[in-house]
Parts: sequence; structure tokens; C-alpha cells
Amino acid sequence: MALKKEYATQDCALARTLELVGERWTMLVVRDTFYGVRRYSDFLAHLDIPRAVLSTRLRTLTEAGILDKRRYAESPPRDEYVLTDKGEALWPALHALLTWGNLHATDYRTRHREFVHALCGSPLTTAGGCETCGRSAMPPAEIDVHPGPGARDHERSDPVSRALLRPHRLLEPLDTTA
Amino acid sequence: MALKKEYATQDCALARTLELVGERWTMLVVRDTFYGVRRYSDFLAHLDIPRAVLSTRLRTLTEAGILDKRRYAESPPRDEYVLTDKGEALWPALHALLTWGNLHATDYRTRHREFVHALCGSPLTTAGGCETCGRSAMPPAEIDVHPGPGARDHERSDPVSRALLRPHRLLEPLDTTA
Repeated sequence: MALKKEYATQDCALARTLELVGERWTMLVVRDTFYGVRRYSDFLAHLDIPRAVLSTRLRTLTEAGILDKRRYAESPPRDEYVLTDKGEALWPALHALLTWGNLHATDYRTRHREFVHALCGSPLTTAGGCETCGRSAMPPAEIDVHPGPGARDHERSDPVSRALLRPHRLLEPLDTTA
Repeated sequence: MALKKEYATQDCALARTLELVGERWTMLVVRDTFYGVRRYSDFLAHLDIPRAVLSTRLRTLTEAGILDKRRYAESPPRDEYVLTDKGEALWPALHALLTWGNLHATDYRTRHREFVHALCGSPLTTAGGCETCGRSAMPPAEIDVHPGPGARDHERSDPVSRALLRPHRLLEPLDTTA
């Protein structure tokens, strides 16, 4: 059933949030930007998303101030997409959704990614903090994403999936050419 | 553009999570169950959701083990929907989405709801803990939802919105008949 994008009569912060990030594929695009994916071709290869949908989602996220669109080549013109501060502020919500999925929607023992506090090497708590350092929350710039126990059984072989078989600091550009 | 429900090639905890709770309206239904809404007619009045969509969402959430469907009257047959443990585990994700929306998608000064640690009366931190008690996370059973500064300007007058003008403990059944 087609539903309109807005929840007009739901005058609630959650409804406004879902209007921005609740559309199909949007949070997967946002997840990839935390992993350092910035370029259209990499999103496309990693997400298997229809081109028209990817273009629309990137435009919506840019218009919402969640992504910043930056020209990195002129001929041919090429843009990359980088999280703004407002976008980075989505990390706790993204981490909480991923954590719930790992514990309740998939087999936790075969999870593909793990998040590690980069400074001390401890895995993040389910609440997104670091027990070793006694911190209840952690900015993404201090978090590394590591391959989890199920990463190598993962059937995907696109450049983003391959690059994420190595530990990678969140937000830093992911080198998909190696 | 119609997109199929599954993200089949996205073998990721987030994709599985979004298949369960990422559909239109689903997180608003889940939010209401945290507020203590249990009955079809109350969801319907509060959400202005098409009946067919509400029925589908409640069925999907029940089949996913997020809600438990309980018969509370026999003639006519009437059911209520209560969060399971798996459903209650969505609280950190829901709180993080709401917090982001309050800070980045709406005017924070006119927020409609506030969450308060019931034992000490302190507002929850943006990370969902209690600074006063030195706790980094808080189960929903210890949280009260209070009307925020914008609650009374809120145009809605359905029974759920009216009931939530008084402080209410999360998860406890909301009395919408008062």
C-alpha cells in the first residue's frame, strides 16, 4: 500500500525523524556513510539499490542537512557525500538499531561487523559506550569497525564489503581501490 | 516508487532490523506501545493511520515477536497488544531516534514529551541515562513520560494525547477513558 511520505497529523519528533530517515534504504545509505563510503558508485555497488532510488535518497539527505555534497572532480563532474554534524548525530540511533538487530533479528554469533573503541581496543557495549574507559557514549570518530565472526562467510564481494574486511575508523574515507 | 519489503542482498543486522521495524508507521506504533497504548481503537485514534495499515503493522509486529497479542474480552472478541522483551529492547533505538528528532528535526523548545527517571525525577540524558544517579542506561520500566513545553499547544485532542498530558510510566497501560 502506498503511503504518503509525511505523517502530517503526527506532530512528534519521531514522525519528523522518520520523514527524514525512515524511508526505504535511507538508513542503509546513512550506515554506509559512517563506514566511510562517499561516492555514488560505491553506494551503488554495496547496496544493490536501484539508481533512481539512490539518487533520490542522496538528494533528500543532502537537502535535510544530513549529508554534505562536495564536488571532488570537474570533468567529468563527480560529487562525494559526507556526513554533517547533524548526520553524525544519528550515530546513537544507528548503533542502537544495529545492536538490536544483532541481538534480536539475526544470529549474533555470525554478526558481520563489530565496533571497537579505537583508543583502547575494547568492544563497544550494547549501549554504545566503553566499559574499559568508563564512558557511556562514544563519538563515531573514536570507533573502529572490525569484521565480525561472520564477515568472511558473507557472500558479498563488492569493493566496499572487501574493504571492510580490514578494521576501519568510522567516518574516514574508505579506500575501495585496494 | 514501490520497493520490495526485503533487502535481500543486504546481509546485515540493520537490514534485518529495518525489515521488521522500518516500514511506514511501524515505529510510531512501537512508540505508542511504550506509552502504554494497547488497544486497536486507541492506536487508531492517536495515529490517524488507515485501518488496513494498522492491522497489517500489528500483525507483522506480533509475528516478529515484538508485540504479544492478548485476548481481553470474548464477546465481542477484543485483543490488546503488549511489548515482549524483544520489543522492550527497542527502547534505546526509539529513544535515540526521538532525541535526534528533538534536537535536529523539530524545535527543541516546543518538544511535546520529556522522559524522566521515575526514581529521582531527573530528565534523561540525550544518551538515555540518568546523570543524577550515574547510570548510563535506563530500562523503560523506570522512565516516566511527561508532557514537554509544547504539549499543550499540540493540536491533537484524541484520548491518547489527552491522557499523555499527565505524567505516565512507560509500559503501564494508559487509561484513555478518564
